[in-house]
Amino acid sequence: MVELARDLSERSSGLRSAIEALPASRIREVANAGIGREDAIPLWFGEPDLPTPGFICDAAAEAFAAGDTFYQPNAGIDPLREALSDYMNRLYGTALAPANVVVSASAMNALMLVMQALVDPGDAVVTTTPAWPNLPAVPKILSGAIRPVPLTPGNSGWRLDLDRLLDACGARAKVIFLNSPNNPTGWMMTSEQQREVLEFARHRGLWIVSDEVYARIVYDRPVAPSFLEIAEPDDRVIVVNSFSKNWAMTGWRLGWITAPAGLLATFEKLTEFNIAGPPGFVQRAGVVAVRDGEPFVEQTVARFGQARDLTVARLSAMPRVLLPRPDAAFYAFFGVDGMSDTVDFAKRLVREAGVGLAPGEAFGPGGEGRLRLCFAASLPTLERAFDRLETFMRGSHP
Amino acid sequence: MVELARDLSERSSGLRSAIEALPASRIREVANAGIGREDAIPLWFGEPDLPTPGFICDAAAEAFAAGDTFYQPNAGIDPLREALSDYMNRLYGTALAPANVVVSASAMNALMLVMQALVDPGDAVVTTTPAWPNLPAVPKILSGAIRPVPLTPGNSGWRLDLDRLLDACGARAKVIFLNSPNNPTGWMMTSEQQREVLEFARHRGLWIVSDEVYARIVYDRPVAPSFLEIAEPDDRVIVVNSFSKNWAMTGWRLGWITAPAGLLATFEKLTEFNIAGPPGFVQRAGVVAVRDGEPFVEQTVARFGQARDLTVARLSAMPRVLLPRPDAAFYAFFGVDGMSDTVDFAKRLVREAGVGLAPGEAFGPGGEGRLRLCFAASLPTLERAFDRLETFMRGSHP
Repeated sequence: MVELARDLSERSSGLRSAIEALPASRIREVANAGIGREDAIPLWFGEPDLPTPGFICDAAAEAFAAGDTFYQPNAGIDPLREALSDYMNRLYGTALAPANVVVSASAMNALMLVMQALVDPGDAVVTTTPAWPNLPAVPKILSGAIRPVPLTPGNSGWRLDLDRLLDACGARAKVIFLNSPNNPTGWMMTSEQQREVLEFARHRGLWIVSDEVYARIVYDRPVAPSFLEIAEPDDRVIVVNSFSKNWAMTGWRLGWITAPAGLLATFEKLTEFNIAGPPGFVQRAGVVAVRDGEPFVEQTVARFGQARDLTVARLSAMPRVLLPRPDAAFYAFFGVDGMSDTVDFAKRLVREAGVGLAPGEAFGPGGEGRLRLCFAASLPTLERAFDRLETFMRGSHP
Repeated sequence: MVELARDLSERSSGLRSAIEALPASRIREVANAGIGREDAIPLWFGEPDLPTPGFICDAAAEAFAAGDTFYQPNAGIDPLREALSDYMNRLYGTALAPANVVVSASAMNALMLVMQALVDPGDAVVTTTPAWPNLPAVPKILSGAIRPVPLTPGNSGWRLDLDRLLDACGARAKVIFLNSPNNPTGWMMTSEQQREVLEFARHRGLWIVSDEVYARIVYDRPVAPSFLEIAEPDDRVIVVNSFSKNWAMTGWRLGWITAPAGLLATFEKLTEFNIAGPPGFVQRAGVVAVRDGEPFVEQTVARFGQARDLTVARLSAMPRVLLPRPDAAFYAFFGVDGMSDTVDFAKRLVREAGVGLAPGEAFGPGGEGRLRLCFAASLPTLERAFDRLETFMRGSHP
């Protein structure tokens, strides 16, 4: 019997082939190549450089002290759902209620819950590419399919050809998934395009899932256009958001879903069967972040705005670099003329120049020949990184 | 167009039928019926009555103060993976390494990750029933199937007919899922049965997924028999565990997976695509719990042991009540002679007598005619609950 077992395990891992086919993180692969280079400047991950403000941490510590260590309601605690619906109503002039809000353990967890509700085996999710690699992974875990439609770069930024997106919605299409402001490109969808997509989705009975985690990280307006501004209460529109970027809370794993109230019971079930929600003390910190964190968000966006201007100025002046100007978010996704293998290039860059960037190949089709730089860092740190990068570019061979 | 959309949404919710078919919590339904009865004694949820010990909370607060609010490694922080492998080696005499351990955001999250790795559409998970309702939900979310095999009650406790379990492993079987010590029955699998299942699984190339979250909640031995004690390093055995019960940390959402080291990369990917792991400060608290929490575990189990003795004595003496003695865990899953609708009965019980129990129907086939009482409470609280229950039993009509 034991010998037969050996034979079996040699033939196959016993894991699902769909899971084995999911790529491991190419960003992590590059980061691992940088281990040992102590002075490397890490601009590879999508993470602000500052820790969470103390007044937010204090709220969590107070919750411990009050014994807030028990199970929580699956939809999240009422004060947080109220704070979030108020927050969105202030931001968008909407009339959302707590019944439209489900708290999640990160936007990533939110996306998993949403796709579990919508994607049957064989169903297709139509989306844009290049993309944050975690997004296409979720439908594949659920035995669904991805239909990627390219964003196209130009000097004035990345743009979407809407006809191509709608044409990609074939018979098995179930969801149009959009991430605007976009990681990695900085693309920001216009309100007009959002309206067209919504009309099309209504006509076809498709769902729109909109990842708006960078909604506040914009530089020429208070907030990015949102599907929340144009959706009717019963429209098949689900928006996913996160505390990570606005309030420097990446490590807290806190996000939320905004959906028609009729979906609340469904998401309560799915939350129960995935994680049963974030800890109560994390949610208490979230209440304080939303309620009292607006000055921090404004300071943060002002800092990132300066960082963007510096990044555009420095990268645009470098030899071999082609940078479509990012409209929003905190990434420069730039081409390097003559670079063929982005993973190899990024590894050399961190080893030889001490600058940690994410390889374009991590972001799927459209990422070839590009690198992603996260500019959510201080100006002196960025200046040092650009000095090193410029020297490397002048000296390096493709 | 808008009218067509209305038509579409009237025809269907647009959600997956597999998700709509998942039952909402019957326990929650009963708990909702108790709202307004302020003096109700809540014994419906599987949650210890004490908050998390202060020395564990302190570790999290210290982590905030040190700025530990950033992304963490997907497999969990090294100190926690080391503490957990040491903990299991102490408990079981195994030779597990940190490479065998993946930290998860609850045992529930762990189960979702494990099933995502294993269950393709149509694959079957063979398991026992009655069962904690969250367990059968997970394969269904992944378009898999459940093959439930009944546990059978007797005065000396619940027992498994192993032949029935193995016979249920048909052509599409992929996983044998076992939860011992068992929620809701208190059943504990013997080492001999575990060996037989392991031999069978090896022979057939099946996976064993073992939910051992109640491993420490045992009363006549230090720890329940574990598949970890008998598995070889490459066996298809995955064990899921939790901080919730041992260290009174239900609200923290912290658990772990123990698996062959070859699966580490797979679980790192799946964690990334589900939640990217629990917060760093939660993991820091976990390190302290595992390292310094052993006296707390011993006190807790001693308390629950007294509670079990009281529960068995009081329930066994009540009219209409049939209680198979629970071997382990902290539940009494007892029959009530003549009770036909367990949800209705449990609602009346909380409204009329102020005792909150979980209805047997929540636990699937085998739960009919039964109620679950969580005895992880203080003796005076339990005494009051039993007094009320006894009065209700004497007076109530089926």
